[in-house]
Amino acid sequence: MTYKIAVLPGDGIGKEIVDQAVRVLTALKLDIALEEAPVGGAAYDQLGHPLPPSTLELAKNSNAILFGAVGDWKYDSLPREHRPEQAILGLRKNMGLFANLRPAILYPQLANASSLKPEVVSGLDILIVRELTGDIYFGTPRGVRTAEDGAFKGEQEGFDTMRYAETEVRRIARIAFEAARKRNGKLCSVDKANVLETSQFWRDIMIDVSKQYPDVALTHMYVDNAAMQLVRAPKEFDVIVTGNLFGDILSDEAAMLTGSIGMLPSASLNASNQGLYEPSHGSAPDIAGKNIANPLATILSAAMLLRYSLNESAAADKIEEAVRQVLAQGLRTADIYEEGTEKVSTSQMGDAVLKAL
Amino acid sequence: MTYKIAVLPGDGIGKEIVDQAVRVLTALKLDIALEEAPVGGAAYDQLGHPLPPSTLELAKNSNAILFGAVGDWKYDSLPREHRPEQAILGLRKNMGLFANLRPAILYPQLANASSLKPEVVSGLDILIVRELTGDIYFGTPRGVRTAEDGAFKGEQEGFDTMRYAETEVRRIARIAFEAARKRNGKLCSVDKANVLETSQFWRDIMIDVSKQYPDVALTHMYVDNAAMQLVRAPKEFDVIVTGNLFGDILSDEAAMLTGSIGMLPSASLNASNQGLYEPSHGSAPDIAGKNIANPLATILSAAMLLRYSLNESAAADKIEEAVRQVLAQGLRTADIYEEGTEKVSTSQMGDAVLKAL
Ligand SMILES: CC(C)[C@H](C(=O)O)[C@@H](O)C(=O)O
Ligand SMILES: CC(C)[C@H](C(=O)O)[C@@H](O)C(=O)O
Repeated sequence: MTYKIAVLPGDGIGKEIVDQAVRVLTALKLDIALEEAPVGGAAYDQLGHPLPPSTLELAKNSNAILFGAVGDWKYDSLPREHRPEQAILGLRKNMGLFANLRPAILYPQLANASSLKPEVVSGLDILIVRELTGDIYFGTPRGVRTAEDGAFKGEQEGFDTMRYAETEVRRIARIAFEAARKRNGKLCSVDKANVLETSQFWRDIMIDVSKQYPDVALTHMYVDNAAMQLVRAPKEFDVIVTGNLFGDILSDEAAMLTGSIGMLPSASLNASNQGLYEPSHGSAPDIAGKNIANPLATILSAAMLLRYSLNESAAADKIEEAVRQVLAQGLRTADIYEEGTEKVSTSQMGDAVLKAL
Repeated sequence: MTYKIAVLPGDGIGKEIVDQAVRVLTALKLDIALEEAPVGGAAYDQLGHPLPPSTLELAKNSNAILFGAVGDWKYDSLPREHRPEQAILGLRKNMGLFANLRPAILYPQLANASSLKPEVVSGLDILIVRELTGDIYFGTPRGVRTAEDGAFKGEQEGFDTMRYAETEVRRIARIAFEAARKRNGKLCSVDKANVLETSQFWRDIMIDVSKQYPDVALTHMYVDNAAMQLVRAPKEFDVIVTGNLFGDILSDEAAMLTGSIGMLPSASLNASNQGLYEPSHGSAPDIAGKNIANPLATILSAAMLLRYSLNESAAADKIEEAVRQVLAQGLRTADIYEEGTEKVSTSQMGDAVLKAL
């Protein structure tokens, strides 16, 4: 069976980094068919919508999506439904990509890149499991209305609905417990159960699911405290599981602890193991087209794609090993460059990974 | 006119740290009358409620509240309405304490305490202005119900309502713009306007209010990016203004950047300048009663109390200067101790501040 992969480069540096990941995937000589389609601002320019129906169809009919990045200043003034980020929200929702896996790993050679002291972050290896299709991101009702009660009755108010149903919490809990089981057996569920009903509901279900995983140590932490502990002692964490909104904030904070967000991949999976794979960083329009962006996060996303959606672990291992090798060789794109290493371009980094494969 | 101050020590280390702040306030020989009342777990034990009506009355009839901290593991299994943190939520809501000011300052002598590299944080001085009586903290409806629509119709779901009315955003905006004007003229409003209707509404009003402050440079940042930038380059910020939920997370993250949360005060003000003043740290039940907690955050909260609610800036300056002096003398409680400095107890630190006054 031929694996189908939808390639959605998007905006900014999207094209140049995805190009390198495509070269790597192709070099592995697996039975895969790649098909490209526009997404984000690029799709809006070409087809009038950030997620055109043809792109969504292609994505749905693929085993996996290799995604670059979306967004550019020039789309900032568009109405929200036409802005590039709607593409990513639309793909998540329409394909049911509820499980976002975001590793925050600090490669030993890049310890200096972090704004934290080396002893605080060296060897960092945590996994954030973020629920991705529920919560206040999609809850209704939402909008602007005249307040009907409370101290500001009669005034205009903006409002949104946070919500989690039982099934939604159970299925992300299972993903997180399974992941923790394969790692160091520690799972920290982050919520705001001292204030939010949704969080108390979430916590109760986490506790219930934990009964099926006696080998995993479940703890709970309030989100404000988690934001602190990530700064104070990030290595105390193994796997963190949290909702869509808190996960958005904490996964970016955790990524930045490493100082090398250009190295961090992510996977967003649905119940049938279809997945969207993208770097954790953004579209960086300021450096687009200059052949200086770091392609490694996208190349490592391709490795996650092989592992999670195509079940090709051996090929995934090869890519990850090749990335470790190029780092060991001292090759660095501008974002992770430091004295004593060799600065290379986007495509040269791609060349080096291919050679190491 | 005699100023009335309600003294609410609370739980854990609350009593011992508030004691030192009371000594400092008393030593200033201002015309103030202090009255103490129980709050939090201590109040629940004595009177069956974390915020007894008598405590709330006292607070309402005072110019300001000097607050210690609330919470202890032993109350964790109580139903939410009886848990210690309800006291603080109740005081905020009942007294309309909508403006939370949380400075994150790194004292030069304590730069080593941070988990961040000294060059990233030395000289850090940012102010977080957090809205404190609105948002998803208090929005209704909220609870657990049977889902009436969507993919999980018929299932149990937990839900909450995020909301901000126009007046609420305008008044916190003004506080933040005024603060920025007195500082370096930079205000960053943090929201999630790419996803949330409440945030777009918030952002539109911030922009509108900014027209009255042409001397302040207003920028906007998504909350996930703000969580990253605080780690990457916190000194780029001057004043941050944000909603209750995002402010909860970011103000704790910012405080932890300093590594010396035992030094950070906070103020929560209402429209008539009544205020609740408390350290940014918690009740630390594990070290309660040992006379080792750091009283400086509470002493500096007393300084904020003098400045904001009593309009006694000169006295506030004196306290802040005294704190700088004891640090310069090398005195340190255990939380900020390092080799080459002199370790002192809670009460010895109080003694030293009194002497420096
Ligand atoms: C672009 C935005 C809607 C998105 C989110 O908030 O989920 C992004 O920040 C992310 O984390 O993938
Ligand atoms: C105790 C809790 C309800 C409170 C909050 O979330 O506001 C605390 O975290 C704070 O920041 O003062």
